[in-house]
Amino acid sequence: MIEQLAGRLTPTRADTRLGVGDDAAIIEPGGRALAVTTDTLIEGRHFPVGTTAFDVGYKALAVNLSDLAAMTAEPAWATLALSTPGIDSDWCDAFIDGAREAIGGASVDLIGGDTTRGALAVTVTAIGTLDVESAAYRNAARVGDVIAVTGSLGDAAAGLASLSQDQSAPISINDELVARLNRPTWRKGAALAGMVHAGIDVSDGLLADLGHILEASGVGAHLNIDALPASAALSAWVGGEIDTRRRLQLTGGDDYELCLTLAAPKLEQARAAIGCALTPIGEITADRGLQLSTADGKTFESTVFSVAGWDHFDDPSNPQ
Amino acid sequence: MIEQLAGRLTPTRADTRLGVGDDAAIIEPGGRALAVTTDTLIEGRHFPVGTTAFDVGYKALAVNLSDLAAMTAEPAWATLALSTPGIDSDWCDAFIDGAREAIGGASVDLIGGDTTRGALAVTVTAIGTLDVESAAYRNAARVGDVIAVTGSLGDAAAGLASLSQDQSAPISINDELVARLNRPTWRKGAALAGMVHAGIDVSDGLLADLGHILEASGVGAHLNIDALPASAALSAWVGGEIDTRRRLQLTGGDDYELCLTLAAPKLEQARAAIGCALTPIGEITADRGLQLSTADGKTFESTVFSVAGWDHFDDPSNPQ
Repeated sequence: MIEQLAGRLTPTRADTRLGVGDDAAIIEPGGRALAVTTDTLIEGRHFPVGTTAFDVGYKALAVNLSDLAAMTAEPAWATLALSTPGIDSDWCDAFIDGAREAIGGASVDLIGGDTTRGALAVTVTAIGTLDVESAAYRNAARVGDVIAVTGSLGDAAAGLASLSQDQSAPISINDELVARLNRPTWRKGAALAGMVHAGIDVSDGLLADLGHILEASGVGAHLNIDALPASAALSAWVGGEIDTRRRLQLTGGDDYELCLTLAAPKLEQARAAIGCALTPIGEITADRGLQLSTADGKTFESTVFSVAGWDHFDDPSNPQ
Repeated sequence: MIEQLAGRLTPTRADTRLGVGDDAAIIEPGGRALAVTTDTLIEGRHFPVGTTAFDVGYKALAVNLSDLAAMTAEPAWATLALSTPGIDSDWCDAFIDGAREAIGGASVDLIGGDTTRGALAVTVTAIGTLDVESAAYRNAARVGDVIAVTGSLGDAAAGLASLSQDQSAPISINDELVARLNRPTWRKGAALAGMVHAGIDVSDGLLADLGHILEASGVGAHLNIDALPASAALSAWVGGEIDTRRRLQLTGGDDYELCLTLAAPKLEQARAAIGCALTPIGEITADRGLQLSTADGKTFESTVFSVAGWDHFDDPSNPQ
């Protein structure tokens, strides 16, 4: 549907630098370019039923700030459109507390709001500043680039699986993994401006999101799936179930880590700049397609993972 | 709830000129100031169940462009966050057609989108350019100002009442009135920059929305309720039911006309600039409160209208 919409939304204004199709649009109304992104979170789809108001507020901000980060934009403003089943002062207070917590030390003003009664849902629009020349774009991956990801992958999907008692995975609820689902860390991608070529945040799963970069850039990739960074919590939770770990890490959504491509010599500089783990997991190839290999030399096509991503139109309790 | 949120959302950035609390926020990232507004429309609340995709798209854009117009901002960009029960290509096409129709000849790019599955709802964020010195603000009404409204009032509420077979009003469905509900005209408020002091769009009903101006400006008003402009369709529909007409015009929402205050000598210039009817309906007074009078000299307090506005938390089929 996004593609259908995007095809009909070609910008016509001279001060629109980039329309629909990347993590954020870019407008240039005056001396500074702005990145603009919008994301809706719906109860039971983007966060589990029963998620606290604090966590709803937190996640609504985090996922949008993450989209800006994927462009290397510095977040500056956000609007909140909140639909709730009723007016509840305590709920709203906690919601704003969560939004503020997600913003953390960043200089982001919440400048607009709309509240209405309806099923619990939040739409945030976030606006950030960026430099269009040094920003990261989905279509900017270059052959030979290292592919790197921030932090660790698979935690959020494991947290959701633990909540939903997914029979194909361990069923113990792991608070640390659930916290990663409910309060995803948005990475400070603005610090990477000029160091990376392509960027995207991992919201739908690594294979799906990296796939967007490959398609937009007209390139392929090779991934070493044993290089995918796993948290200690995830490793402990999956135990010896290596296929479960791989599935969660490759197709699980909602991690909001950044997947970046950059020239290999820039890796150390980028790691120092972003201030979190930045793990090389593969490289961009001229051959189209996405080849996966394991440390012991087995290779296979990404299509062995039956669904290449987390489709929010599927049942959210069953992301496989 | 808005007030509660606003009290906790004090801007901290030097380039945020105005935060929550007016029709739009104002940011000034570079050489040009931007007005930003966001509004959610939910099926069964902001548009009747069964409204066409075209009309949903139309109204979602129109109500947001109207918020910009109330600040005298020139609309430039909008993002769409759409929640629908399923993917339907034809529906989306018609939705975009409607959005484009609402934009009309204005230079507005649709720069962002998000689609998800859920109850039918749309959140639009609109961004426009404005001059902060000449813009209209809710807190800028001056004693002695003429109060004027664009177009005509009460049509949308009459359209809704006709659809919902409201027993307190005529029950015939009037297509012209329903069209005013589904495809509200947003007025080209940008043309009024520098001519008006205070402005708001009539989304919740004249008494409620004018009340926001009075409260923010610390003033009162006198309204001549027989001066309220009524369309021929409304007059025909209500027939001799003058109390029904008054109720619809004073408390009915969703007209998206502009309610403005301005110095009397500016009225002709403003009327010529905006290119639609601009009717004086009263004046701003130093005495707080809102006094209503009829052409035959009767006066009464606005509180005789039991609910001062269209509360979207009430049953939308019963706006009284």
